[in-house]
Amino acid sequence: MFRFRIRLLSTCVVAVLAFGLHGCAQHTTSGPLSLARQGSFFVGGRNVQSDTLSVLPQYASAGTIAVDQMYVRYQVPSNANRRPITLIHGCCLTGKTWETTPDGRMGWDEYFLRAGHPVYVVDQAWRGRSAGNISVINSTRLGKAPAAQLPPVFAASQESAWAIFRFGPEHPKVFPGMQFPIDAMPEFWKQMVPDWAQTLPTPNPTVPALSELAVKLDGTVLMSHSQSGIYPFQVAALNTKGIAAIVSIEPGACPSPTSDLAPYLKMPILVLWGDYVDLSSRWSPRLKLCREFAAAANKAGGKVENVVLNDLGMPGASHMLMQDLHSHKIADWLLAWIERNK
Amino acid sequence: MFRFRIRLLSTCVVAVLAFGLHGCAQHTTSGPLSLARQGSFFVGGRNVQSDTLSVLPQYASAGTIAVDQMYVRYQVPSNANRRPITLIHGCCLTGKTWETTPDGRMGWDEYFLRAGHPVYVVDQAWRGRSAGNISVINSTRLGKAPAAQLPPVFAASQESAWAIFRFGPEHPKVFPGMQFPIDAMPEFWKQMVPDWAQTLPTPNPTVPALSELAVKLDGTVLMSHSQSGIYPFQVAALNTKGIAAIVSIEPGACPSPTSDLAPYLKMPILVLWGDYVDLSSRWSPRLKLCREFAAAANKAGGKVENVVLNDLGMPGASHMLMQDLHSHKIADWLLAWIERNK
Repeated sequence: MFRFRIRLLSTCVVAVLAFGLHGCAQHTTSGPLSLARQGSFFVGGRNVQSDTLSVLPQYASAGTIAVDQMYVRYQVPSNANRRPITLIHGCCLTGKTWETTPDGRMGWDEYFLRAGHPVYVVDQAWRGRSAGNISVINSTRLGKAPAAQLPPVFAASQESAWAIFRFGPEHPKVFPGMQFPIDAMPEFWKQMVPDWAQTLPTPNPTVPALSELAVKLDGTVLMSHSQSGIYPFQVAALNTKGIAAIVSIEPGACPSPTSDLAPYLKMPILVLWGDYVDLSSRWSPRLKLCREFAAAANKAGGKVENVVLNDLGMPGASHMLMQDLHSHKIADWLLAWIERNK
Repeated sequence: MFRFRIRLLSTCVVAVLAFGLHGCAQHTTSGPLSLARQGSFFVGGRNVQSDTLSVLPQYASAGTIAVDQMYVRYQVPSNANRRPITLIHGCCLTGKTWETTPDGRMGWDEYFLRAGHPVYVVDQAWRGRSAGNISVINSTRLGKAPAAQLPPVFAASQESAWAIFRFGPEHPKVFPGMQFPIDAMPEFWKQMVPDWAQTLPTPNPTVPALSELAVKLDGTVLMSHSQSGIYPFQVAALNTKGIAAIVSIEPGACPSPTSDLAPYLKMPILVLWGDYVDLSSRWSPRLKLCREFAAAANKAGGKVENVVLNDLGMPGASHMLMQDLHSHKIADWLLAWIERNK
């Protein structure tokens, strides 16, 4: 125990020398990492038939494919003594969100692992390593379907994402004090992928898959972000079993304060926000709705915290706060919150 | 050293008891795994402009996106004492190919790691966590481009993939003695994703990205499969620097025996095949071409081995041999080949 503390101290001292106070992590970010086990699997999914899987002679056009499954990569540390954390990325991104930051620092996936949590990183259904269905593209190409039926798949432009992710008020202006590693922006843009979410039903197939995963893990913290911010709440509405806690980071929406709040009274809930929200016409109404949700849920007997990082002395957080320069400091606070609410 | 041997022996004995001889692995598949470091990053990529990134009001239609980058996840074991291995998946699949098998056994990614190799797993450009460009879909939807210009993206049907992957002569017949974990087939089908390769130039953008990675690693074994089987050869034609060896598993093509063979004389090369190739009109000409390539390259002073697993006493291998029931036994042989050819 004494040696462990010495190691933490030295990591922190080195970090302070190298990066200033922001880099001072409570948990070690160096030295060997011992895993009890790791691997990957899929949850959910269903078979669908199509006769326009291909327009190429070398691949059959008709047959069966599996869609809606959710890819999960997991690691369990040898010293696992805490709840599994399930990390769910947001719009136009994949599980890469939680891995190595664009400027090469340790991602939350490993940081949480080193703190004793098993970590499960998913790719949402139809994103990354989770397959979607492209049949209608070929149907249109073959004249079997009108162009209007093409899926509204979209790619977030770097210019528009700049303001949405609150790197600044508009591209390429930067908010004063903003903590995203702006020099590594080109590496961040490479994380973005096309998003098919608008072609999918509500709730997104990721939601029942997350429920199945939570039940399987028999207790996990569902940690979501942005587009997926609402998912853990939708999972709870489906089935509260297996949800140890919800951490919703800058959700695109919170449940309505006038909705059935019963599912959200059964687990501790944290809604976490970065900086500059009041300067964003996109985000400020969302923060307001989440405050109203928290008040209503707490009035009904729930335990919901709606926290802005500035109020914790951690200003400058962007929407991609898990990649910000002070991401490990934010992670430390999150780990302590999870520990307090276990 | 003595204790290490005891451990290998016991793993092997347990495996024999549980699975028969096929499961007898030379390297340990249990116990804690110690990593020196791990993480992920992108290689390559370029920015492109588009005015049809979105047809949704909430996302701008015009702007810049990054495409052609290659996602790489890596792990370096604490006992790293061998060359890095770069694992490159095939058609309609992602890096998941090399991870946990459909029936839940350890994938080659970790198996090679436990043998002392740093392991780099990629998602090909435009696949998995590596973004493609969907602009033309929206252009067509908006009437700005004709349907004939839609990309020939395709999804391999389970029925057609059955014969292509040589699980049997045709769906759902199974070759006698075939070693793919057939009971876990539904989990395997979930690995398959849409494939945009036919919309990409030759060589695929994955190829220059692999070259950049090989140079960065200053010596890596490029291990490819099926569609990507030809990629390491294309990397060598581009630049032989950083290629310690090529292991091409059931390649869709080998270089032509009448092409410029100079790049392929500079490193050891293995082309590896499973069973039932002669029974497949798709695969038997490919094996023939690779034999001709090997003969021509060896005549020119190269060191190319073209090996069929049956000739090594490992019959029953499917096209997905890295997931077959005897996958660890095959991996042992591959590890020994790499060691012999370092």
